Amino acid sequence: MSKSFLTHLECPKCGKTYDPSQVQTVCTCGSPLLARYDLKKLGASVTKKDLAGRRTDMWRYREFLPVASEENIVSLGEGMTPILKTEGLGAALGLDNLYIKDEGLNPTGTFKARGASAGVSMAKQLGVKEVSMPTAGNAGGAWSSYGAKAGLETYIVMPEDAPDLAKKECYLAGAHTYLVKGLISDAGKIVGRAAKRYGFFDASTLKEPYRIEGKKTMGLEIAEQFGWEVPDVVLYPTGGGVGLIGIWKALEELEAIGWIGSKRPRMVSVQAEGCSPIVKAFNEGKKESVFFDGAQTLAGGVRVPKALGDFLVLDGVYKSGGTAVAVTDAEIVECLGITARTEGMYICPEGAAAVAATRKLYRDGWIKKNEKVVILNTGTGLKYPDIVAPRLPVLEVGGDIIVPEMAAGQ
Amino acid sequence: MSKSFLTHLECPKCGKTYDPSQVQTVCTCGSPLLARYDLKKLGASVTKKDLAGRRTDMWRYREFLPVASEENIVSLGEGMTPILKTEGLGAALGLDNLYIKDEGLNPTGTFKARGASAGVSMAKQLGVKEVSMPTAGNAGGAWSSYGAKAGLETYIVMPEDAPDLAKKECYLAGAHTYLVKGLISDAGKIVGRAAKRYGFFDASTLKEPYRIEGKKTMGLEIAEQFGWEVPDVVLYPTGGGVGLIGIWKALEELEAIGWIGSKRPRMVSVQAEGCSPIVKAFNEGKKESVFFDGAQTLAGGVRVPKALGDFLVLDGVYKSGGTAVAVTDAEIVECLGITARTEGMYICPEGAAAVAATRKLYRDGWIKKNEKVVILNTGTGLKYPDIVAPRLPVLEVGGDIIVPEMAAGQ
Repeated sequence: MSKSFLTHLECPKCGKTYDPSQVQTVCTCGSPLLARYDLKKLGASVTKKDLAGRRTDMWRYREFLPVASEENIVSLGEGMTPILKTEGLGAALGLDNLYIKDEGLNPTGTFKARGASAGVSMAKQLGVKEVSMPTAGNAGGAWSSYGAKAGLETYIVMPEDAPDLAKKECYLAGAHTYLVKGLISDAGKIVGRAAKRYGFFDASTLKEPYRIEGKKTMGLEIAEQFGWEVPDVVLYPTGGGVGLIGIWKALEELEAIGWIGSKRPRMVSVQAEGCSPIVKAFNEGKKESVFFDGAQTLAGGVRVPKALGDFLVLDGVYKSGGTAVAVTDAEIVECLGITARTEGMYICPEGAAAVAATRKLYRDGWIKKNEKVVILNTGTGLKYPDIVAPRLPVLEVGGDIIVPEMAAGQ
Repeated sequence: MSKSFLTHLECPKCGKTYDPSQVQTVCTCGSPLLARYDLKKLGASVTKKDLAGRRTDMWRYREFLPVASEENIVSLGEGMTPILKTEGLGAALGLDNLYIKDEGLNPTGTFKARGASAGVSMAKQLGVKEVSMPTAGNAGGAWSSYGAKAGLETYIVMPEDAPDLAKKECYLAGAHTYLVKGLISDAGKIVGRAAKRYGFFDASTLKEPYRIEGKKTMGLEIAEQFGWEVPDVVLYPTGGGVGLIGIWKALEELEAIGWIGSKRPRMVSVQAEGCSPIVKAFNEGKKESVFFDGAQTLAGGVRVPKALGDFLVLDGVYKSGGTAVAVTDAEIVECLGITARTEGMYICPEGAAAVAATRKLYRDGWIKKNEKVVILNTGTGLKYPDIVAPRLPVLEVGGDIIVPEMAAGQ
C-alpha cells in the first residue's frame, strides 16, 4: 500500500499547522486539529469504481485515511454498516423515504469502533505505547479493544454509572479500568493529570486528531451507499459531536475531488433535554456552547455537558441549513419501542433520540413527507440492557401457550 | 431480480422430494429437508467477478438463495462478516495462520440473523402469518426481529434461564414471549402443541427448511473471502448444528458449479463437556447421536441435548476427515479472556469453546502449526453479560490514577 495523502494537521480556529509525523494533540489556541490531505493527488489516485471490489469495511477508503502503511492498520472489521430502508417505521412516523444507518453492527457494538480503529492505527504508526482516556463508556470499550489488538497499554476512566457492558469490555480487553463518582468531565480531569504525570498519550475526544478520520467514513459510506447522491436530511445524536463533524468533513472532501456536487444534507444535531448544550447554543444563534449544568439523561452517549468540538458541530449545522433538536427521555424510550416493533431493530437510546427528533421535525413541517432522511443509530441496544424489564409469562414443563383471542384449530 | 434457481426440497435420508411453492416442514420419514437448486443454470448465471460490486450482506449471493423476488427479502444487513487474522491469539496458541470469522457483527448480535433472514423471507413469500419456535435465546431474538420487520406474529418459547438480552429482544420486537421451567426440548414440545392447536407455522430448528440456506452463506463467504481457496480446518460450535451443515452444503454447491475444487476444510464440531452428544457419537463411530441427559453448560447455544440434524453434522465431519471435540466451561471462560486480551474481541462462550478446541487440537498434534484455521465466533459476548463481574477501582471526583510500577514523569 502506498503512503497516505495526509499532508498536515490544521487548526480550524487559527489556521496554525502541525507536523503529522509527530504525536500531536490540540492547537496552542486550544482548538482540536483536523487532518488535511493532498486532495488533488488523492482524487487522481482512485475512482468510484475502484471501490467496488475492495474490503467491506471502512478501510476500503484507505486513500481518505491517514495511515501510511497497511501493516499499521488495526482493524476488527469496522464500517460498511448497512443503510436500511425503514418502511414500517417510516409509515408509523408519516415519512416515505426514511432510512437508518445501523452502527450497531460494528465491532464493540457502536460507531466508536471507527474512531478507535483510526486512532489506534495512528498511535501504532507514531510509536505510542500508553493511551489514556475518559469515556461515557462506549469509546472506552472500543479503544480498549483496538488497543489490545495493537498491544497498547490503555488507561480508561468512566463514570461509576456507565453501562456495565462497557466496563466489562474494558476489563476483558486488559485495560486498566477506573470508575469515578462523577461525570465524563470529571474523568477527563483525572486523565489529564495522569497523562501529565506518567507521560501517557491523552486520547480524549478531539484532543486526539485521528478518531474523527475514522468517523468520517460514515459520511463516505452514506455517499457511496446512496450512489453518490447525498440524502436531504441526516440526523445525528450529538455528545462529543465527532460523528457529525466527521460526516461533514467527508462530504467536503468528496466535493473537493468532484465525487459529489455542492448539495449537502441538512444536518440535524439531536440531544436529550437533560443535556442539550448544542441545542441551546443553536437556538441562541451562538457559535459555541456553554457548559450544561446538571446533565442528566438515560442516553449516556449524549450526556456531554460541553464538547471540545462544539463550534465545528454548530458550523456544520448552520452551513447545511440544518437544525438542533432536544427530546425527552420518555420520547426516547417510546421511540426505541416503536423502532423495535416496526423494524425489528433493537437500537440504542441515542439512536432512538434521533428517531424521536425525526418525528418532531416532521410534525413541525421542517422535514417533508417525501424527503430522503437518514437517521444514524450509533449503537446496538444490547449495550443498554436496563432500558426495559419485561415480566414474561413462565410456563411449567408440559404447560401450554394460551392465545385467548384465537380459536383453536383455525 | 430473476426467479430463484430453487427447484425442490429433498430428504437427505430417504430421497423423497417436496414442492417448495408450498409450506413444508420435515419429511414423512422425520428427517429435515434440504433445498435443491438447478445448479447448472445457477452456475451459468453468475460469475465470481459479478459479486464484487454487490451489496455487502449475505444477499449478494442471491442466486444461491431460495427467495424468488427481491420484494420478499427481509434484511437487516446480515452477513459479510469479517474474517480477521488473529495474530495475537495465534501466537498465544502457537499457530501461524489463525483466523476468526466474527458473526457477532450481525444484526441481533449472532449468526442466527442469517437463518432468520432466509427463513422469514421465505415465510413472507409463502404467505405465512404466524410463526412459533422454541429457542435457547438467540434464534428467538433473531426470528422476533425479522418477523417484526416482515409483519409476522411470532410466538417464542425459551428456557427461563435463557439470556436476559434475548428475552428483551423478543419482547421489544413485539413477539409473544414465553419462558419455560425447563430446556429447549421442553420448549419445543410446547411449540409443537401450539402449532397444532392454532395453526402456527412451527419454525423449530430444521423443521423449517430455509434457515439452513441463510447459514449456508457463511460457507460462501469463507470461500469468497479467502479468494476461493478453502482453509485447512474450520471449527464450529455445535448446538443444533445448522451452521456446520450449511457451510458444508455451501462448499458442495460451489464445487458443483466449479468455483472451488474438491478440497474441503476438515470440519470440527465443538461442544461443551456438559452437553456433547455429537462428540460422543463421533467417538463411538455412530451416524446419529443419542439424547444427552442432564445437559449443563454456560454456553447456552450449544446446550442442545439432541439435534434433529445430528446425522448431517456427523456426515460432514466424517466426509471431511474432521473431528469432534468437547471442552470444559472453565476452558471456555479462560479462552474468552485470552481472546479479549490478545485480539480485543469480546466473543461469545460458544466461540470461546471453539478457541479452546483449537488449542486442544494443536496440542494433540491434530492441527499443524502452519495450517490455515478458521474459528467461527457465532455471536457477540455482549449478549452474555454475566460471564465476568469485575470489581473495578472507584475514584472520588478529584481523585487520581496511581500506577505503582511506573515512575511519574517517565
